[in-house]
Amino acid sequence: MSERWLKLTVAYDGTAYAGWQIQPSHPTVQATLMEAWRAITGEQVTLTASGRTDAGVHALGQIVGLRTASKLECARLVQALNAKLPEDVVVTGVESAPNGFHATHDALTKWYRYQIHNSRVRPLMDRRYRWHLPQTLDVRAMQAAADLMVGRHDFACFETTGSERSSTVRTLTRVGVGQGGAAGEKIDFDVEGDGFLYNMVRGITGTLVEVGRGAREPQWVAEVLASRDRRNAGPNAPAHGLVLVEVRYA
Amino acid sequence: MSERWLKLTVAYDGTAYAGWQIQPSHPTVQATLMEAWRAITGEQVTLTASGRTDAGVHALGQIVGLRTASKLECARLVQALNAKLPEDVVVTGVESAPNGFHATHDALTKWYRYQIHNSRVRPLMDRRYRWHLPQTLDVRAMQAAADLMVGRHDFACFETTGSERSSTVRTLTRVGVGQGGAAGEKIDFDVEGDGFLYNMVRGITGTLVEVGRGAREPQWVAEVLASRDRRNAGPNAPAHGLVLVEVRYA
Repeated sequence: MSERWLKLTVAYDGTAYAGWQIQPSHPTVQATLMEAWRAITGEQVTLTASGRTDAGVHALGQIVGLRTASKLECARLVQALNAKLPEDVVVTGVESAPNGFHATHDALTKWYRYQIHNSRVRPLMDRRYRWHLPQTLDVRAMQAAADLMVGRHDFACFETTGSERSSTVRTLTRVGVGQGGAAGEKIDFDVEGDGFLYNMVRGITGTLVEVGRGAREPQWVAEVLASRDRRNAGPNAPAHGLVLVEVRYA
Repeated sequence: MSERWLKLTVAYDGTAYAGWQIQPSHPTVQATLMEAWRAITGEQVTLTASGRTDAGVHALGQIVGLRTASKLECARLVQALNAKLPEDVVVTGVESAPNGFHATHDALTKWYRYQIHNSRVRPLMDRRYRWHLPQTLDVRAMQAAADLMVGRHDFACFETTGSERSSTVRTLTRVGVGQGGAAGEKIDFDVEGDGFLYNMVRGITGTLVEVGRGAREPQWVAEVLASRDRRNAGPNAPAHGLVLVEVRYA
């Protein structure tokens, strides 16, 4: 039987899910996609993803790989999947992938965005997607701190303990601080790199916010990085402000 | 007892509400605000609004008037109300209003926005706030049609029957068609005027969409207006894309 590999681009609102990875007794994005795929093709398929996202984390461009015997055209699969999927999961594209494509192993870079609502008044339409911080944040100080994170560093200071990785060295190509909204209330951290440790972007966010609220000077980030000790960085920001924006492959 | 008038600016996600106006057995924004006010001040207050919004319609700047004996400062009221209100209703401001202020009668202009998601793929984060239209819309044709609506006209063609108004003449100062989003998928109609008939913006939207999808030429709108007959206009767009953005007072 002839098979082929496909690459799905998937967006989801993580609010109602216990994260990407399938688990018993909790709704997950992976199980939801598997079920939609089964309903359309009859196949019980194995899905790879660029990475797990935690409970409550969102995605605009999660990449999912699979191997299928289905002959359905890519455009038809997009339509059929979106017709089966619940309103909080959307497949934005399906395309052919090279033989043996594995969304986790083949990923070259990932881009995460952490979204803050910086206003004394809490957010309304964005309330599921932004962390509400009422105190004024100094955007320039946060960008100065963010600049110190760009490049190849040992990011052990931002890794939540318990994970087992051979190396905690990663390269960040971008740590940008953006500001938007009518009153400058939308503050976004765009973090792009070749790999991320567990809870790394949420740790980076909590650390930048320490600088933004004036509790620390930007230069403090250099000390935190050099210490390689999670206890020296800021607290992890909550999951609901984090979005996996884009993943690149060769 | 000394009393004063206050003007509240209120934002809400209308998804879970049977509209602004209080009614038995259904959650409404008015009842929700009254309950929060009572919890803070002990007062059973009468609330006026710039206008009723229908079930499912949202607001960023609904204006609410009330008369109170409470001595609490405006800034404290904002904080206290937001602490009591559910996450889908936010008070963004409280200020003093002239004696006798009535949010309905004193309103000079209102600005509504109708939000469309124009893409083959359905919306994710915006799904509660945008009408999904998969077919390509011609933005220039819609703007040409919208231009014909600006000014003082009899808008009977956009009034859902059943309402009883003495006059169906209104003045629209702006009917703008905006396009945004990474792929131009966000299309917004900004409609501003001195008053609106029942379902008027939803009728305008449905009519502009007829032009946008090529079923009608822009000039057709002039005929529709002249006919003063609701049956000649496009269908009402669904409630969930409509947002009351701003109301102006003298």
